[in-house]
Amino acid sequence: MRGDAARVVRGVRPLSSAGPDDLSFLTAAKYRDEARTSRAGAILVAKEEELPHDQLVCADAPWALGEVLRHFHPVAAAAPGVHPSAVVAVSAVVDATASIGPQAVVGESTRIEAGAVLHAGVVVGARCRVGPGSVIYPRAVLYDDTELGARVTVHAGAVLGADGFGYAARGGVLVKVPQVGRVVVEDDVEIGANTTIDRATLEETRIGAGSKLDNLVQVGHNVRLGKSCVLCGQAGIAGSTRLGDGVVLAGQAGVGGHLELGDGVQVAAKSAALQSAPAGSKLAGVPAVPLNEWRRQVSWLGRLAELGRRVRRLEKAQERTAGAASEEDGR
Amino acid sequence: MRGDAARVVRGVRPLSSAGPDDLSFLTAAKYRDEARTSRAGAILVAKEEELPHDQLVCADAPWALGEVLRHFHPVAAAAPGVHPSAVVAVSAVVDATASIGPQAVVGESTRIEAGAVLHAGVVVGARCRVGPGSVIYPRAVLYDDTELGARVTVHAGAVLGADGFGYAARGGVLVKVPQVGRVVVEDDVEIGANTTIDRATLEETRIGAGSKLDNLVQVGHNVRLGKSCVLCGQAGIAGSTRLGDGVVLAGQAGVGGHLELGDGVQVAAKSAALQSAPAGSKLAGVPAVPLNEWRRQVSWLGRLAELGRRVRRLEKAQERTAGAASEEDGR
Amino acid sequence: MRGDAARVVRGVRPLSSAGPDDLSFLTAAKYRDEARTSRAGAILVAKEEELPHDQLVCADAPWALGEVLRHFHPVAAAAPGVHPSAVVAVSAVVDATASIGPQAVVGESTRIEAGAVLHAGVVVGARCRVGPGSVIYPRAVLYDDTELGARVTVHAGAVLGADGFGYAARGGVLVKVPQVGRVVVEDDVEIGANTTIDRATLEETRIGAGSKLDNLVQVGHNVRLGKSCVLCGQAGIAGSTRLGDGVVLAGQAGVGGHLELGDGVQVAAKSAALQSAPAGSKLAGVPAVPLNEWRRQVSWLGRLAELGRRVRRLEKAQERTAGAASEEDGR
Repeated sequence: MRGDAARVVRGVRPLSSAGPDDLSFLTAAKYRDEARTSRAGAILVAKEEELPHDQLVCADAPWALGEVLRHFHPVAAAAPGVHPSAVVAVSAVVDATASIGPQAVVGESTRIEAGAVLHAGVVVGARCRVGPGSVIYPRAVLYDDTELGARVTVHAGAVLGADGFGYAARGGVLVKVPQVGRVVVEDDVEIGANTTIDRATLEETRIGAGSKLDNLVQVGHNVRLGKSCVLCGQAGIAGSTRLGDGVVLAGQAGVGGHLELGDGVQVAAKSAALQSAPAGSKLAGVPAVPLNEWRRQVSWLGRLAELGRRVRRLEKAQERTAGAASEEDGR
Repeated sequence: MRGDAARVVRGVRPLSSAGPDDLSFLTAAKYRDEARTSRAGAILVAKEEELPHDQLVCADAPWALGEVLRHFHPVAAAAPGVHPSAVVAVSAVVDATASIGPQAVVGESTRIEAGAVLHAGVVVGARCRVGPGSVIYPRAVLYDDTELGARVTVHAGAVLGADGFGYAARGGVLVKVPQVGRVVVEDDVEIGANTTIDRATLEETRIGAGSKLDNLVQVGHNVRLGKSCVLCGQAGIAGSTRLGDGVVLAGQAGVGGHLELGDGVQVAAKSAALQSAPAGSKLAGVPAVPLNEWRRQVSWLGRLAELGRRVRRLEKAQERTAGAASEEDGR
Repeated sequence: MRGDAARVVRGVRPLSSAGPDDLSFLTAAKYRDEARTSRAGAILVAKEEELPHDQLVCADAPWALGEVLRHFHPVAAAAPGVHPSAVVAVSAVVDATASIGPQAVVGESTRIEAGAVLHAGVVVGARCRVGPGSVIYPRAVLYDDTELGARVTVHAGAVLGADGFGYAARGGVLVKVPQVGRVVVEDDVEIGANTTIDRATLEETRIGAGSKLDNLVQVGHNVRLGKSCVLCGQAGIAGSTRLGDGVVLAGQAGVGGHLELGDGVQVAAKSAALQSAPAGSKLAGVPAVPLNEWRRQVSWLGRLAELGRRVRRLEKAQERTAGAASEEDGR
């Protein structure tokens, strides 16, 4: 604390709307001017700032903001029990502390473990596992045999375990290759709204522990993600590709099939990784190249007209020289 | 009317399939040949055309086509009342003229206003508002605290109010930043099938009045759209970005986070706006540049091989000159 | 069979996990080393390989793999009948051999034909047809008037028949053009999870027989696909475009509106076809150009820095020449 250590705040609001009873936060330099004029009672900062406000200094400010929000906005516990409108198969095992919402459907031999929450209209197929403390938001669908670990969050409309996209062309007709594997989601994963993760052809499509997938992301069959991967909105991964730990795909990025991206690889927004890449690579472009190289390409793209003019100038000079030379020769 | 003002038509069909009882329409020059041979009884045109048909001339032909279609295809009113299979919380307030379809779910303290329609299987969370005349198609989901204004249309599978994609990395682990804001959709907005709009971290993600979002569009947390924006299919906007009025994102376009696009900005298909842009900008490319500049870049891209050959020719000429010069020096 | 024709296998597994009781398969050259050390009892190959294993040689190996999987993993037949929690309109006609899952909804005058399966929570609107043997996975939605042929598969969350994206701008306001057409899906089509196919403005959006659409694909209004088209994950087609037979859109590819792509056209991943293209074209890039041209462009992009240096060297040489010449002149 810098300033009045007895300062009391009753909520968290952004710089522009915070009042004297609110804690606000300054986590990006571009908002420093806005901070100066904020009416916030106190401001959470990463290091002490030249501000007239009381300051809560925390080196890891984004994390601290999360902790403060958790304090002010505790998650309301869902009431345990099965809503009378839900349809739960006789052979399913639902823990007494789990919550099954209205219109939800739970298939044969499925286990819903302690504290798990299925919101309204969720469909969980047969032989699935929903691990302890996992939460599935309305209308998400788990096909048969899908497994969620502990504390997994699945947002509304996400579909886990639909058939992978596998066909064999035979005489001009596409014949389906049965997709008989499954999807396994490890602990502490979060999956965004309307995201789709296909079941494996034979074994597992696997999402590593702590990975976070944004909305409308596509994960093809047989893909394996390491731990703590981050897949931003509308990113997509074609079949049988493996990502190491901590791989980041920015928004609308794509990764081709049957590739390996090592630990910590980052693919920029709108880019397409079409080759395997070693750990730590930062890639951009279509097809993706090392980020620095892409920046040079972009820079050159903007100067092509100028380059063209320079070549034209050289050609004219060369024509003059050639003309002069032939004149000389002709003397 | 040009031609027989007493002409009666009984429906609207495209040029290729219209018969003598149909009105057809010519709204793009490329279909003029097709118009000439159409069997349509009459043709709606923007200005009088050299056609053998009776013509209904309306300067604003696309709008007129809409009015005519509305005349021939009035929307069937949904029967008011709550379907017996729907689950409506006791504290929810449903207007007597509203319609709640089979298997729908309405949460605590939610208001469903006059004439609103929730089709089959819609889930509306707690403390939501569905304004008068709004229509929500099957299986769309509104998370808690979402607000829809008047005459909003939400298509099937759309998800409004899922958590924004916010995490703080701490010791290699991604810790969730609670997303405690909400989504507000102003009047006359239309939201496409399976589109996702995330709730704000703290305050509001807001969709301005009259905006139209196509299918599979992603709108990140804290984003604000002005009035009458158009987001075409599979477009995406990263978090905390603000769009002015009348901004257009073409299909599969993307906009980075924490940016401002002024009124009327247009981003071309497949392009990515990664910097803020003033009102009226027309952008294309990845990263997006002014449209004219992008066209030049594309044109140069197609001529790079030629440019390379010209440089090679210059080098050869220069080698000859240098050779000649050194020969001369060597004499 | 090469090797022990009496070999018995009890399942199919990938090279890395197969044991002596399993058949495995080698369908891509890059996995040859893995095959050599596999513990599989037998390996399915396209032609005889130098392997110590018993081999099942089948020229069309991917197809044969599918057949073998179908043998080992027969699809469990859904129990015929209507689940008591489903809501089926009185005027709907459900074949006695069809299966309607829990929480499903079937609208007025809709026909569900022999052997069709509607899984949990499916919503089929009014006046639809679900042809014989078609399967609709949980939470998929068919709007009114949608028609599915025989043996169609629709995966979870897919939305068929939502309104096309059509508006007329009038005085700065976007006025909806009613979308009164429908979606027709021919026989043997498969549609991926959360994919969206819009109804036509007036007549039909049509998906040709045997076409396969992956997850999160967007098909705009009035689009027509020929037979056996392949649309990979997150591909999108703008309105009124026509695809011939056997057209392939790779992942995240896009096609502009009002275009025609001839039979067998292929659009590469992340590319955008913005012009019509004749049969057999292979396209890549944004905007898409012939694949070979795109490869040359990409190759040149990687050598722009070098080209720039070469031009700089020529300029310096030219400056020296000009300097020498003016020196000479000045003598």
